[in-house]
Amino acid sequence: MRGEAGGAGPRVVVVGAGFGGLWAARALAGSPAEVTILDRHNYHTFLPLLYQVAAAELEPDDIAYPVRGIVRRLPNVGFLMAEVTGVDLGERQVLTDGGPIPYDYLILAAGSRTNFFRMESVARCAFELKEIGQAVILRSHILRLFERALREPDPELRRALLTFVVVGGGPTGIEFSGALAELVYGVLARDYIRLDFSEVRILLLEAMDRLLPALPEELQTYAKGRLEAKRVEVRLGAAVTRATDERVYLKDGTSIATRTLVWTAGVQASDLAAGLGVATARGGRVVVNPTLQLPDHPEVSCIGDMAYLEDEAGRPLPQVAPVAIQQGEHAARNIRRQIEGRKPLPFRYHDRGTMVTIGRNAAVAQVRGRPVRGFPAWLAWLGVHLVNLIGFRNRLLVLVNWAWSYLFYDRGVRLISESEPARSQERSVPR
Amino acid sequence: MRGEAGGAGPRVVVVGAGFGGLWAARALAGSPAEVTILDRHNYHTFLPLLYQVAAAELEPDDIAYPVRGIVRRLPNVGFLMAEVTGVDLGERQVLTDGGPIPYDYLILAAGSRTNFFRMESVARCAFELKEIGQAVILRSHILRLFERALREPDPELRRALLTFVVVGGGPTGIEFSGALAELVYGVLARDYIRLDFSEVRILLLEAMDRLLPALPEELQTYAKGRLEAKRVEVRLGAAVTRATDERVYLKDGTSIATRTLVWTAGVQASDLAAGLGVATARGGRVVVNPTLQLPDHPEVSCIGDMAYLEDEAGRPLPQVAPVAIQQGEHAARNIRRQIEGRKPLPFRYHDRGTMVTIGRNAAVAQVRGRPVRGFPAWLAWLGVHLVNLIGFRNRLLVLVNWAWSYLFYDRGVRLISESEPARSQERSVPR
Repeated sequence: MRGEAGGAGPRVVVVGAGFGGLWAARALAGSPAEVTILDRHNYHTFLPLLYQVAAAELEPDDIAYPVRGIVRRLPNVGFLMAEVTGVDLGERQVLTDGGPIPYDYLILAAGSRTNFFRMESVARCAFELKEIGQAVILRSHILRLFERALREPDPELRRALLTFVVVGGGPTGIEFSGALAELVYGVLARDYIRLDFSEVRILLLEAMDRLLPALPEELQTYAKGRLEAKRVEVRLGAAVTRATDERVYLKDGTSIATRTLVWTAGVQASDLAAGLGVATARGGRVVVNPTLQLPDHPEVSCIGDMAYLEDEAGRPLPQVAPVAIQQGEHAARNIRRQIEGRKPLPFRYHDRGTMVTIGRNAAVAQVRGRPVRGFPAWLAWLGVHLVNLIGFRNRLLVLVNWAWSYLFYDRGVRLISESEPARSQERSVPR
Repeated sequence: MRGEAGGAGPRVVVVGAGFGGLWAARALAGSPAEVTILDRHNYHTFLPLLYQVAAAELEPDDIAYPVRGIVRRLPNVGFLMAEVTGVDLGERQVLTDGGPIPYDYLILAAGSRTNFFRMESVARCAFELKEIGQAVILRSHILRLFERALREPDPELRRALLTFVVVGGGPTGIEFSGALAELVYGVLARDYIRLDFSEVRILLLEAMDRLLPALPEELQTYAKGRLEAKRVEVRLGAAVTRATDERVYLKDGTSIATRTLVWTAGVQASDLAAGLGVATARGGRVVVNPTLQLPDHPEVSCIGDMAYLEDEAGRPLPQVAPVAIQQGEHAARNIRRQIEGRKPLPFRYHDRGTMVTIGRNAAVAQVRGRPVRGFPAWLAWLGVHLVNLIGFRNRLLVLVNWAWSYLFYDRGVRLISESEPARSQERSVPR
C-alpha cells in the first residue's frame, strides 16, 4: 500500500490522528516531506469533552472532526483510514490491515487505552470513556435503566438499576460524575416524575485518600465538597477488586449492587507500544530520548500518551492533551531539522495549567501555579475548551448545546440507541 | 403493567410516538382521559429529514426529540418505552414486552415499514430509510466505501464500490439520491482528491415510466432534469427482481455491480396490523370507518400509515405526515366526544400540498393544486420543514447545519461509526 500524499520528499508516516499526531502533521504542512496520517477512525476526537457525550449533553458529532476535512487544506499531507497492527523498525514499515506502508520518518502517536490493572472481571463488566462509541453506549445504557426502573416493582432491584458507580478520582471521573448528577437530578427528575429519586445513587470511588492528587489540597477539598453538594457520594480509600454485571466488590469486603460501573481509574499506552520491542516504563509507555526519538532509532519519534519522558524535576510528564500537542509540534520541528541535516532539539513542556470542571458554575484550575476555583475557573474552562475545538461549526454546535443546557436545565440529547451491543464487542483494542 | 399517567379518567393508550400518535396525545392534553403513549424508542423521529442523516447533512439527534420532553408538559399524558407485540381487542389490552396494558380507548398509530414486495433477496441486501439507526448505518457504509475505493487497485472492483443504486422514484428516493450526489460531487470529491470521480455512479431506478406519479407531468420532468444535472442517472421502467451483496438484477435481464442498494420503493403497514385479525387493504393497511374507528370496535381508532381510508373521490389517502397529523388530532377529538357521550365525526383530509426537494436551490411543490418549482419551492420546503420540527433547539441545530452546508458546500457530519453491523440485525421488525 502506498502512502496517500503526493510528492517526492522524504516519507513521514504519522500513526494516530489524536492531539499528538494531528498537531504533528499540521506542523509538517509546507515542509518538503510527504506526510501520511493513519488512524482507524476517519475523525479526530476531542477527548476532553467525551464525558459530556456520555452525559447526554453533547452529540457525538459535536466533538469529532473528519481528518480529511483538515488535511485537504494541507498540500503535502494525506490520510489513510487503516488499523495499524505493528511496526517493522528494521524494514522501516508500518504494518496495517491494508498492507505495509514504508517510511523514512515515523511519528508514533497512538495514544492510550483504559488500564484495568489486570482485573479481568472489571475489564469484562465496566464501561469505558476513551472513544465516541463507548460514550454513546454508556449514554443509552443509563437512559435505558431509568426506563426499566419505571417498570420495576421490586424496590431492591430498582435501587440497583438506579445505582451508578464511577471509579477514579481524576479529572474524567470527577467531570463525568458531576455531569451525571446534573443529568439525573436536573433533567431526568422531570422526565420520570413517578420515580422516587431518593432511590438514585451516584458514587465516585477513589482508591487513594484524595481526589485530583496533582492539584493543591484546597482545590481537592473544594472539588469534593461541590460533588457532594450535587449529591455525588465521594468515597476515598475505596479500591475495587472485582466486579460482576450485578455487583462491584471493594477491598474492604463490602460490595455495591449496580448495573453501571464506569472505569476512569487509569490508562496505559496503546498496545502498539508493547509490540515495538523497545524499553517501556510504567503503564507500558515507550521510553524516549529528550528529543522524543527512540534510543536506537533516530528516524522514529514517539509522543503523547504513548511516550514516557520525565521533566527537569524527574517527574513523568502527564498523559494529557497539552503534552501531546506540544510534543507533536516538537517532533515535527525535529524532523524538519533532520531533513535539513541539523541536530534534533530536546523537548521542554510548557505547563500552562490544569483545569477540571465539576459542573454548572463550578470548576477548579491551577494556572501558572495559582489555584483558581468556582465561577471564574468554570468560565475559563468553557472558554479554553471552546477555543481548542477544531472547526468553527463544531464550536458553534457545542455553544448552542451548552447554552441550551445552562439556560433551560435541559439536555436535548437523550436518545436511547437502537440496541445495546455487548460491551466487550465495542472494545477496539483486544485484551 | 400499569399505564404511566395518573388520574382516574378513562384510560387512552396510544401505540406509536410518530406524527399520528404524538399529535393525538397532544390533542388529548387537558382532557379527562388518562393517556399513555407507547413506543419502542424513547424519541420521536422527524422522518421527512431522515434521508439527510444518511447523506451526512444532519446529525441523528437533530431530527429526534425525546418523547418525555414533550409529555412532561402535558399533565394527563405519560410515556412508556415498550415494544408492542399485539392487541387483545376482546380483553381490551395492549400486549407489550413489559406485560399487558389495559385500555378504555385505543389509538393505533404504529406506522409503516419497508415493503420489499416479497423479494427475500432484496430484503436481505438492501439498506432502508425508515429509522435513525438505518440512516446512520447507510451513512457510515457510504463513507467507508470511499475509504476502501482509495485503497483498491482493481478498477472493476473500485467501480463497483463507487456505484450507488437507489430504488424508488417517490419523494424519499429523489431526495436521497439528490442529497447523495451533492455529498459525493460537492464534498467527497474534495476529500478524496486521488480518486477519479468519473468512476462514481449514482443510479435512481423506478419501475414505472415516471417519477413522482402524484404530481403534474411538468414537475416530474423538472425533477428528472434537475437530478440528471446533478449527475444522478435516472432510469425509468427499471424494475429490480433480485439482489446479492454484490449485484442488483433487473427485469430486463441486465444487472448492476454495486455494494449499495437503497430501497425506498414502498411501505406496508406495521406488522401489528396483520395481528389484529381485522380486514386489511393493499399494503396490509387496516380498513377503518370514516370516523377512523375499527368497524366492530368503536373504542379503537387506527390512524396514519397503518390505516386505510379513501377520500371523497375514492382514492386512498397517502401515507404521509400531514395525513397522520390530521388523523391523530381527529381521533383525539372523537375520543373526547365519545367520553362526553357524543357521536364521533367522520374525518376529512385537508390537503395543503406536496413538496419534494431535489437539493440546493431546487424543489418541486404542489400548493393548492398549483405547481411550483425551483428556488421558490426550495425556500418553501426549507421553511415548512424547519417550522414543523419539534423543539426550538432542534430547529436551531438543523438551521446551523443547513447554513453550513449551503454556504461552504461542506458537510460537518461525515463520521464513520465504529463497526458495520450486519444490516439485517438492525431491522427492528422481523420479516
